[in-house]
Amino acid sequence: MTMLTETLSKIESVNKENMIKAEEHVNGLLKPVGSLGVLEKIVIQLAGISEDLLKDDFKKAVLVFAGDHGICEEGITSAPQQVTTLMTHFIAEKKSGVGAIAKQANAEVIVTDVGVNAEIANPKVRSRKIKWGTDNFTKGPAMSREDAIKSLEAGIEIANEMMDKGYNLLATGEMGIGNTTPSSAIFSVFGEIDAAEVTGIGANLAEEKMNRKAEVIREGIKFNNPDKNDAIDVLAKVGGLEIGGMAGVMLAGAARKVPVLIDGFISSAAAAIAVNLNPSVADYLICSHSSAEKGAQKGLEIMGFKPYLHMDMRLGEGSGAALAFNIIEAAVSMYNEMGTYADAGIAVV
Amino acid sequence: MTMLTETLSKIESVNKENMIKAEEHVNGLLKPVGSLGVLEKIVIQLAGISEDLLKDDFKKAVLVFAGDHGICEEGITSAPQQVTTLMTHFIAEKKSGVGAIAKQANAEVIVTDVGVNAEIANPKVRSRKIKWGTDNFTKGPAMSREDAIKSLEAGIEIANEMMDKGYNLLATGEMGIGNTTPSSAIFSVFGEIDAAEVTGIGANLAEEKMNRKAEVIREGIKFNNPDKNDAIDVLAKVGGLEIGGMAGVMLAGAARKVPVLIDGFISSAAAAIAVNLNPSVADYLICSHSSAEKGAQKGLEIMGFKPYLHMDMRLGEGSGAALAFNIIEAAVSMYNEMGTYADAGIAVV
Repeated sequence: MTMLTETLSKIESVNKENMIKAEEHVNGLLKPVGSLGVLEKIVIQLAGISEDLLKDDFKKAVLVFAGDHGICEEGITSAPQQVTTLMTHFIAEKKSGVGAIAKQANAEVIVTDVGVNAEIANPKVRSRKIKWGTDNFTKGPAMSREDAIKSLEAGIEIANEMMDKGYNLLATGEMGIGNTTPSSAIFSVFGEIDAAEVTGIGANLAEEKMNRKAEVIREGIKFNNPDKNDAIDVLAKVGGLEIGGMAGVMLAGAARKVPVLIDGFISSAAAAIAVNLNPSVADYLICSHSSAEKGAQKGLEIMGFKPYLHMDMRLGEGSGAALAFNIIEAAVSMYNEMGTYADAGIAVV
Repeated sequence: MTMLTETLSKIESVNKENMIKAEEHVNGLLKPVGSLGVLEKIVIQLAGISEDLLKDDFKKAVLVFAGDHGICEEGITSAPQQVTTLMTHFIAEKKSGVGAIAKQANAEVIVTDVGVNAEIANPKVRSRKIKWGTDNFTKGPAMSREDAIKSLEAGIEIANEMMDKGYNLLATGEMGIGNTTPSSAIFSVFGEIDAAEVTGIGANLAEEKMNRKAEVIREGIKFNNPDKNDAIDVLAKVGGLEIGGMAGVMLAGAARKVPVLIDGFISSAAAAIAVNLNPSVADYLICSHSSAEKGAQKGLEIMGFKPYLHMDMRLGEGSGAALAFNIIEAAVSMYNEMGTYADAGIAVV
């Protein structure tokens, strides 16, 4: 059995009984029923994943995957491709946005090169390079099916390593100039909607280039004809290596009952891949922020997620997911620290 | 000079030069310009309030004010008035929602009784009782003008005490069965809109009682005819003692250049009082969550604030504001921890 099939085979449904028990506890806390909204939903979800998550302090990490995109040669980005390399170093040095936010949340940041189009000689960057950037998907698949599987397995491997070390709350992040384009393509395929509906400005793309970006996505989908019922086919034909890495983390988390935070648009596209590989994965994913990138909201909607952080952020890197660590902890604090109506000897309001 | 007039006289505009400097720094950080959205706006606002806020660790506290409401005799609440007393104790014991959330954020919770309709014999609750609950405002003013000023001064006093102890990030919270009703009345007056537009279910009020609640507010406003250009008149006639306390905290924060977090609907009504006393106060207020209470969004809109936490929470107590402490800290971490394009020797993307 390969690492991927083994991981997929371990994914079970969440424990509904534990969820009901947790909901009963939450409804007995000293507050009007339902009045803590999303915090209540989060702890009930955590209970379904594993009751241990309601007891322990979290050990948190953002797993960032970096990769380049052949589609950049179509001129659909504002920043040059070299920025991927540059930012991969800065993320590893914790000098980027996700590093600053993770530091406040007392979370680790782990960066893995799965497909940067340059030598990354930095001991702080893990090397799992599968390919020196994807290929231009208007002219063929972004990568082979084998490489798509390797990208998923790179994510599984890194996530397993972290879970072995006791990390029990993971977030996904990415760096890859051009990667809003494959993300839009993925949602366009799964959602069966036109590229324009899920195509945004990325890192400050000029308005006039937007139409070209949507057109490139349409061309790529037409040329490759990805099978929406085969998520690996979608990932290979119009996806990205770092998207595969993040999807792998989601699969590994689900397999080992560890929740994984979705970040913004690109991370949501990874979630779409993971959930299409096994629908149960969705129950292990926790969304975070509503990225300002057009298509992000649509993307999460397609997935059935409702983000609760509306920060107008569109940085990627896992920065929005890192901001949600504290929210998850606040939810668990609610669960453990609040008194109950029973303690107070009164009826539930 | 009274404490109130002295506090009001000290409120200055924020420092626009510092804001411009901070914005320049933020634009030079290693990220696409504007891509950290609300975090960027928060640090720029903090810089305008005081540059020291960008350097120091925050000392955080939620200042909760408790008071009862004569309007409860109109049957417009789901919970009995005694719950105010009960919850005031639980908040002080840190067994309520705000306590649990503040604990995660490493923040203090201070509870002050400004008008609970019962003896609160608890050394953890500060006593500044002005009145044993407001009067039913359908039959006269909720309180006298003198008592309204006393409630503002109680808030100023508590805030000053905390700022003397080095607290430099304050949040406002409240407990007071029935207090969504005066809050709706305050927004109805300032916004010149019908009560129904800003009246919600409070702590799970049955739908059929909603119309009665709006009607009571209309009656109260008609009977008392509060002067929307005189915020103290509005507070006295249709407000609440804990609303005055929270507004006092906002005034004191502005006077001493300490940011104050707005919580949900009732706290927003307090903000409306404070800002109508001195428009510059708005620059010292930071909003947090969009309460699920109907009218909350409308209320913040009237004030020009855009909440970023969409947690479907409607507990009050300062619980939503407490959840924003980490966001403020993440914004400051962004400011201090990220590398700059200048360090990296490259042009701004």
